[in-house]
Amino acid sequence: MTTLPLEANTRHVLAIDIGGTKLAAGIVTATGQLLDSARIPTQVEQGPDRIIERVLHLSRMLLGRSRAHIERVGVGCGGPLDTKRGLIQNPPNLPGWIDYPLVQNLHDGLGLPVALENDANAAALAEYHFGAGRGTQHMVYLTISTGIGGGLILDGKLYRGKHGNAGELGHLQVRYDGPSCNCGGCGCLEGYASGTNIARRAREAAADHPESLLARLTPSLSDITAQTVLTALEANDPVATALWDETLDMLAAGVASVVHAFDTERVVIGGGITNFGDRLFVPLRDRVARRSMPSLAEGVEICPAAFAENVGILGAAAVALREPLEVSL
Amino acid sequence: MTTLPLEANTRHVLAIDIGGTKLAAGIVTATGQLLDSARIPTQVEQGPDRIIERVLHLSRMLLGRSRAHIERVGVGCGGPLDTKRGLIQNPPNLPGWIDYPLVQNLHDGLGLPVALENDANAAALAEYHFGAGRGTQHMVYLTISTGIGGGLILDGKLYRGKHGNAGELGHLQVRYDGPSCNCGGCGCLEGYASGTNIARRAREAAADHPESLLARLTPSLSDITAQTVLTALEANDPVATALWDETLDMLAAGVASVVHAFDTERVVIGGGITNFGDRLFVPLRDRVARRSMPSLAEGVEICPAAFAENVGILGAAAVALREPLEVSL
Repeated sequence: MTTLPLEANTRHVLAIDIGGTKLAAGIVTATGQLLDSARIPTQVEQGPDRIIERVLHLSRMLLGRSRAHIERVGVGCGGPLDTKRGLIQNPPNLPGWIDYPLVQNLHDGLGLPVALENDANAAALAEYHFGAGRGTQHMVYLTISTGIGGGLILDGKLYRGKHGNAGELGHLQVRYDGPSCNCGGCGCLEGYASGTNIARRAREAAADHPESLLARLTPSLSDITAQTVLTALEANDPVATALWDETLDMLAAGVASVVHAFDTERVVIGGGITNFGDRLFVPLRDRVARRSMPSLAEGVEICPAAFAENVGILGAAAVALREPLEVSL
Repeated sequence: MTTLPLEANTRHVLAIDIGGTKLAAGIVTATGQLLDSARIPTQVEQGPDRIIERVLHLSRMLLGRSRAHIERVGVGCGGPLDTKRGLIQNPPNLPGWIDYPLVQNLHDGLGLPVALENDANAAALAEYHFGAGRGTQHMVYLTISTGIGGGLILDGKLYRGKHGNAGELGHLQVRYDGPSCNCGGCGCLEGYASGTNIARRAREAAADHPESLLARLTPSLSDITAQTVLTALEANDPVATALWDETLDMLAAGVASVVHAFDTERVVIGGGITNFGDRLFVPLRDRVARRSMPSLAEGVEICPAAFAENVGILGAAAVALREPLEVSL
């Protein structure tokens, strides 16, 4: 009698992460272990049909070399999208994907059931099932990179809302009379504290203070990024310090609003902003606690996401592993 | 053969509303019809034991004259409270109720199962089951009176969060650098737009503009209330108009944040602010739509609560009618 290798006895899924820059796929176990993966550039200019052809090629390669039986496929993709009908609805990072039947096309090409979720929700599921959200019933995932997004785990389940867009936490309005945002809002958290907007505010501060280290770190002010702010902060530049202090207040207002709205156990923060490490988490925890009702703030944990580069694949895997499959064809 | 009257064949509950000013109780049908009710002053200075004695007396009177069989009791009370253990935990409007075993004492006195919920959650359930939230799966209830509170119906169920305090929407922070709030936060919605704070801001505006109608409507500036603002607004007083315009922006920032966080179908607004009628709802709908992502704003309804004075009793009834009873002794 021979014993099959462990992974052949357990449940595995094919996970596909469709981004505007890269396409990634992987074979993931039910406990979130990434067994095999591959990534290729998206080349958005090719349009959805040719891109999906290459996704199918990548997927078949991984399925072919997997020793495990794969029963399901999970996909994470930038929204807006319709999870129930399996359509991609013209996301800004995927031009031309207008009501594109992604689930149908992957199902036809692979012969497996396919589940779809937007990337922020998928990442929230990955952190909840495999990462920094394990053991909770209520977890809010906040990703702060180019933009700010979120995903909500409430009573142990992903909460999607009416259109499947709940958790757009970048558009919490933290200054009612603040500057206009693309969304139509004013004073949106994303308009102040996304990586892009931290960089924009830093360029403005550097222009006002040409003598500052912040202004002198890059060949031109237009080269300043959020990473430049971190470098200047580490050198105790007062202009960068003041900018970061204000950013922390903006973020604390957003996270305290989340705490009051959701009475969550844990806020998991992912994205490029986690590069700020203790300079982010230590003061943010303190300010959120001070800005919240004690009965709500008690025990709330604010912690970094467990996953960075693989969060897309692990998120797609978590979508596939969810019971029951919410998309059926 | 005799036929019992209709109400004897259907499910009825005893509903108890415990407020800082009055105690109310009623017999309510499963469809939210109030068949009988009574109210008496709370007299908070008597302390919990004597007050509950009077609640029991009131309840027995209603039970005695009810022709229907009553199986359950629902209670709404100001928080903080512990719904699972049935304890009242020192609410500001009920001094001395420190871990008071309300559910146990009512159960002992009435011999019926008792369910407890905080008043904002109970009101949300009343609107959801019997009122302005009927037919939705996702409804956010916002009450704007002395303070601002909320209750959340998500995926057809009351969402409570970790400590049972989810939906503290008065503490959405709509100006990250705003004035301090009792909660510890800065720029909380309640600190600007509750009835109390609309009146405070109106007193400040009137002091700056002693020539305004707003300043001349009351014997002294200290007599100005939110109702005075409405009166001055109806007479097109420019100071009141500017104040209300700013208040609408604050409220729109809060409601737009709710829309982005919850992707809700309907926002039901109750409390004294509904006296502003179309002067509230018409511009608020317009501003929230403008301040929200189109994919989220689409179809969101912002409407007045169905219930005003009876919302406490109907809320308590909705708590009792919930299946299964979440408190068991």
